[in-house]
Amino acid sequence: MKSKLILALLAVACVNGAVAAEEGNDLIKYRQSGYSFMAWNMGKIKAQLDNPAKFDKDQVQAAAKVIAAIANSGMGALYAPGTETGKGWVPTHAKPELFKEKEEVGKLAGDLRSAAGKLETAAASADQAAIKAAFGEVGKSCKACHDKYREKH
Amino acid sequence: MKSKLILALLAVACVNGAVAAEEGNDLIKYRQSGYSFMAWNMGKIKAQLDNPAKFDKDQVQAAAKVIAAIANSGMGALYAPGTETGKGWVPTHAKPELFKEKEEVGKLAGDLRSAAGKLETAAASADQAAIKAAFGEVGKSCKACHDKYREKH
Repeated sequence: MKSKLILALLAVACVNGAVAAEEGNDLIKYRQSGYSFMAWNMGKIKAQLDNPAKFDKDQVQAAAKVIAAIANSGMGALYAPGTETGKGWVPTHAKPELFKEKEEVGKLAGDLRSAAGKLETAAASADQAAIKAAFGEVGKSCKACHDKYREKH
Repeated sequence: MKSKLILALLAVACVNGAVAAEEGNDLIKYRQSGYSFMAWNMGKIKAQLDNPAKFDKDQVQAAAKVIAAIANSGMGALYAPGTETGKGWVPTHAKPELFKEKEEVGKLAGDLRSAAGKLETAAASADQAAIKAAFGEVGKSCKACHDKYREKH
């Protein structure tokens, strides 16, 4: 009886195109990893901007490349149906609205890609004022999405 | 008495240049995130190589950029003294030898950077045979380090 119930649930999942729980948890883990690694690189750029006398442009360029590459890695695929809840490294902090408001989420993701691209360009120029401005825009873009679609924790 | 002990321990930590436990756990979390996000992107390239008729060169290029950017992000800083043990997302799987055999670890890290750079170049060419060969070299480079310095789990 129990196995029939599981088969029935699996059938429903397949009809919806949703991923299985284990696969879903892997996707959640990958998205948590991507944002976390971006955060480390944002922190490195901030540390450089906070200490302009010892500004290490190579480190800033490398960090900006990471942020742009992750922003452009197609993370939308990590929000497949079936990943609204679940546990990657930790339980997901994504709000249910994220999976419904596709147009707004797409706009915010585009804003991040755009801001990250400008930060990468500014970092290549090694112009600290330009990097600071572009860095601020990336930060705003992170916050805009967190404010709408990330549970406080 | 307890606070004096803590102060004494902190002083020892400062003398050794070791990071405090909380900061160390953040570094462990970042390195786990970086490797995990690389693994997702390796998986995406493999999926494309396994399905040559529907090869999506843009996805492969984006994934290769992520891998190269992470490999060149200065992850050595995430292995600061004090991070030999600890818990990021999960307890670290790094073996104690990783923190002692600096020359060998540096060589393996250089191999990864080199292989990732070649994969990025191959991906830009969209030549599937070249991508497959370069992808294999990156995989070997991951494995070489895991075999020596990562606990089985």
